[in-house]
Amino acid sequence: MEVPPLVLDRASATPLPVQVAAGLRDAASSGVLAAGDRLPSTRELAALLRVSRTVTAAAYDQLLAEGWVQGRRGVGTFVVDVPVGAPRRAGAAAAAPASPGPRPPSAVDLRAGTPCLEVLETAAWRRAWRAAGDRPPDVGADPLGDPAFRAAVVTHLLRHRGLPADPADVLATSGTSVAVAEVAATLPPGARVAVEDPGYRRSTGALRAAGCDVAAVPVDADGLVVDAVPAGVAAVLCTPAHQFPLGGRLPAARRARLVGRARAEGFLVLEDDYDGELRYDVAPLPLLAALAPDVVVHLGTTSKTVSPTLGAGWMVCPPAVRDAVLERRTVTGTRPPRAGQRVLAAMAESGDLSRHLRRLRRELGARRDLVRAAVLRAGLEPVGDAAGAHLVVPLVSRAAEERVVVAAQERGVLVSGLAESCVDAPARGGTAGVVVGWAAPRRPELAAALGVLTRALTTAHR
Amino acid sequence: MEVPPLVLDRASATPLPVQVAAGLRDAASSGVLAAGDRLPSTRELAALLRVSRTVTAAAYDQLLAEGWVQGRRGVGTFVVDVPVGAPRRAGAAAAAPASPGPRPPSAVDLRAGTPCLEVLETAAWRRAWRAAGDRPPDVGADPLGDPAFRAAVVTHLLRHRGLPADPADVLATSGTSVAVAEVAATLPPGARVAVEDPGYRRSTGALRAAGCDVAAVPVDADGLVVDAVPAGVAAVLCTPAHQFPLGGRLPAARRARLVGRARAEGFLVLEDDYDGELRYDVAPLPLLAALAPDVVVHLGTTSKTVSPTLGAGWMVCPPAVRDAVLERRTVTGTRPPRAGQRVLAAMAESGDLSRHLRRLRRELGARRDLVRAAVLRAGLEPVGDAAGAHLVVPLVSRAAEERVVVAAQERGVLVSGLAESCVDAPARGGTAGVVVGWAAPRRPELAAALGVLTRALTTAHR
Repeated sequence: MEVPPLVLDRASATPLPVQVAAGLRDAASSGVLAAGDRLPSTRELAALLRVSRTVTAAAYDQLLAEGWVQGRRGVGTFVVDVPVGAPRRAGAAAAAPASPGPRPPSAVDLRAGTPCLEVLETAAWRRAWRAAGDRPPDVGADPLGDPAFRAAVVTHLLRHRGLPADPADVLATSGTSVAVAEVAATLPPGARVAVEDPGYRRSTGALRAAGCDVAAVPVDADGLVVDAVPAGVAAVLCTPAHQFPLGGRLPAARRARLVGRARAEGFLVLEDDYDGELRYDVAPLPLLAALAPDVVVHLGTTSKTVSPTLGAGWMVCPPAVRDAVLERRTVTGTRPPRAGQRVLAAMAESGDLSRHLRRLRRELGARRDLVRAAVLRAGLEPVGDAAGAHLVVPLVSRAAEERVVVAAQERGVLVSGLAESCVDAPARGGTAGVVVGWAAPRRPELAAALGVLTRALTTAHR
Repeated sequence: MEVPPLVLDRASATPLPVQVAAGLRDAASSGVLAAGDRLPSTRELAALLRVSRTVTAAAYDQLLAEGWVQGRRGVGTFVVDVPVGAPRRAGAAAAAPASPGPRPPSAVDLRAGTPCLEVLETAAWRRAWRAAGDRPPDVGADPLGDPAFRAAVVTHLLRHRGLPADPADVLATSGTSVAVAEVAATLPPGARVAVEDPGYRRSTGALRAAGCDVAAVPVDADGLVVDAVPAGVAAVLCTPAHQFPLGGRLPAARRARLVGRARAEGFLVLEDDYDGELRYDVAPLPLLAALAPDVVVHLGTTSKTVSPTLGAGWMVCPPAVRDAVLERRTVTGTRPPRAGQRVLAAMAESGDLSRHLRRLRRELGARRDLVRAAVLRAGLEPVGDAAGAHLVVPLVSRAAEERVVVAAQERGVLVSGLAESCVDAPARGGTAGVVVGWAAPRRPELAAALGVLTRALTTAHR
């Protein structure tokens, strides 16, 4: 039984039965009431509207006569199947709006930061959702996150990243940018936070939105230039596994220097373990969080290794940071949704996640070789491809960078210029080049797009 | 093939083969390497570590002799099943920490704001996850949310809330508090926002965390006292369907007055449609968003009607607010995770959601009658029970309130005092009473708890 909102004007000259009938008619023609809906009895409606039953009976008689409703004796009064007029606001724009952005419909996306959905097996994905659905819903007072998910993260960190994390220090997040914002919100207002330049723009956006004063620190082929981090920062955000976008891996000496400074100067290090699971022909390096769990907040996510659909990430942090983040979650009533955590946990428990990561590394490693070869064919030397799913082709100037981006886009291939990742406007005069990713397209599309890329680089790079 | 992080010290007196063997031994004893893991070949490891193959071969020979690894000719070298020592940090606290909070383990929870999981059919829940898992993952550039979920929300709002929303104005959120924070972040820094007092504490927390200046506005039996909203606010947050916690339903005249002031004075109204789907023996009233879609942000969630596990809510807002929220999501890289949205969409598409909501209304209406009766038996008159899943028992003083809360808790029943919901410290001298919810427990537990409640009210209320 559905009752639409009916507002009666008792001071009006329009008789109440006419007002009631008009209200129900509007509801039926606008779709608020649908064919088959049972109306309340005249007695029930009268009680609801605080009018006499004579009023509601008269209104129903009118609607019956007009054919809007049908009475079935002893069963009730039902809305009949009438043509629905245009709802007041809803009808015109019934289709979902298109996603914003200039991406042409058939473009091949060679930008960085996307997952490789082609590798993810449909059967494994389905299995994980089914297993997740076998668990009952919960009221979920635990602001740390789904326990099964957190257990899966502890195992993942130990096996795949060499990090023995204390489960009590592992919090679920809904992704790296949200986690950056959560940690930033626990810093003093206006705190200075150092970021890599060029760097990941959304982290910078999250920091600024949280009221932080962002300090841009230069990056070289080895990643963050640790000695260029200014004094007086409250935190340093970096991507040591595979610097975004230049692709450097922070060497052991710089890692030690960074956490040494953090301890001596009392700042936090936010280790965005971007692309940490993807490493090709180089030895692993110890995580910052393994070197100095007392000053490092380690951030991971499954949005690139599995899918952003899940919104399942994690944070491993010193107890004081953990407690501050939890306190804020409680006070503001904000918690990472747990549905995607359950799917990821199920995928880990079945072994499907480990199998998927092996397939992913193999596939992305093979694609890396294809992309490298395409760049070399253009007579250029890529950098930053020892890990991850993108490399950089350094170019002689911003003008050349722009020409390559445009030339590729005109032939339906999307690559990014390094200018997009610059934090400081002056630094836009810095390293020029294009960022080429290989996770998003299907293999045949990738092969075709690489032909376009080689041509664009050959003709436009000077 | 797994390779743990090995850092070699070339300046050390310890020979390199001994260092390599020690690193691998540590990895095996701490669990980084597990039984059955295949080690890289001596050639591969030598290349990774930039040492000669003699070094790695010597290290493997040592580990073979010690029994840590096993060589299978032509297949590889494998870690054997050795007893795992305590990992450096992980071992001691391997169990997930308990949730914080003073709740005794066997307490019956009669606090407000919880879902009624007993009504949710296991089969329907499973069906929804299965159907959701049949959809492939997506890269998900759409910051508005999952399209199927948004379509389901549009239908839900029209059918159950009488709101014809333009789909282009409907955004997915991960819940009401997060949505409040998102809208607050688009207001000018330090903007003044009026809230109900007593009111929902987490919304106030979210507003303050976003830097808003919160102004407490009194509430009476009809909800927000609209004329007490001070001049100069940027927004007013209220719960018109069922004021939290006092339970008033904002009358039509106050609704009109509120949106009239909003238009005249240029403020936004945030309509938290808390308990909007649950209404018992009263007529529906038009939503604020239906009266004035140009100034009202309508907020809904499934955390109480279905389960907070999903993290699936929505926001219907004027285009300028929508664009500001979307812009912020893009800049900060934060989006509501879509896994729970998919489950909810599947539940709506199958018709299970409508069936569930009918069952929920019936069950919670019946429980409402039981709770009313228990309060009346104590000689007291409940208020605010025409909608929702909680009522308030007004009491003569804060001291009586405290006594009832404690007396119930001592017998294993949790209820809240109104003091918990006060925004302003001075207002803690205001209305006294206890908030009694009925969604959380199973029916038999509820019956037993109501006996305790009646006794606590009878003996402790004066």
